[in-house]
Amino acid sequence: MTAQSSKATEESQIRKLIDDQVKAIRDKDSKALMSDFAPDVLLFDLINPLQYSGSDAARSRAEEWLSSFQGPIGYEIRDLSITAGADVAFCHSLNGVSGMKTAGEKIEMWWRATVCFQKIDGRWMVRHEHSSVPFDMESGKASLDLKQ
Amino acid sequence: MTAQSSKATEESQIRKLIDDQVKAIRDKDSKALMSDFAPDVLLFDLINPLQYSGSDAARSRAEEWLSSFQGPIGYEIRDLSITAGADVAFCHSLNGVSGMKTAGEKIEMWWRATVCFQKIDGRWMVRHEHSSVPFDMESGKASLDLKQ
Repeated sequence: MTAQSSKATEESQIRKLIDDQVKAIRDKDSKALMSDFAPDVLLFDLINPLQYSGSDAARSRAEEWLSSFQGPIGYEIRDLSITAGADVAFCHSLNGVSGMKTAGEKIEMWWRATVCFQKIDGRWMVRHEHSSVPFDMESGKASLDLKQ
Repeated sequence: MTAQSSKATEESQIRKLIDDQVKAIRDKDSKALMSDFAPDVLLFDLINPLQYSGSDAARSRAEEWLSSFQGPIGYEIRDLSITAGADVAFCHSLNGVSGMKTAGEKIEMWWRATVCFQKIDGRWMVRHEHSSVPFDMESGKASLDLKQ
């Protein structure tokens, strides 16, 4: 393969992994979601705490989040940009979720997402994920009304 | 070179780039800071707006931030983890700044940082940077009192 076609192949593999993750979230399938995470994954999530270290902590967080919705979860990824080398890759995007929380509150929110990948034993895995909203300097409030 | 030593070489080049950026911030040298940024860099910053797209926007933001301090800037990077391939790499860390703002307010804060790199014409450049603090679900407030 030429370098160009090899790069395209890696990118399409990453794109498929991301599509699978979108499907796993919409299906509330934490097992499918976690199957792409490396054992030593480090997550910087939207809300406290500061970080989740390792796939066990990430799994607990994913299960907690997915089960906080009643009914379907709407989940979308926009402005996705993927940069892939032979065995290290990253992407960034704006991700949105909508749905009804178990407490009855309807939510729709968007955030910034960065995901970093490494090919381990021939398979792309998520090594690091960073999700956040910016905050407003004056009020100190997180910007939870971002729209796409 | 073996794959192992090549990987170590790329990692040490990334580490040097990060060291140079720490020095540039402490020196309030936005030109040095920006010299490692790719023209199409995309920044997700701590505060609004949602994103800064391109090196011109990133430069304006860096100049505004560096000039918002009077006197020296204390800047530190902790828990740095670098994953480098042949031409794509990423790192994550906890970054802290301390100093006196021009308005007289003393600040010391820590945040989560993810930086994504690509080798362009044989030189590592920053293609993407994501800095954030998590927020508290109850209050909606950004967590600005993170300590290391």
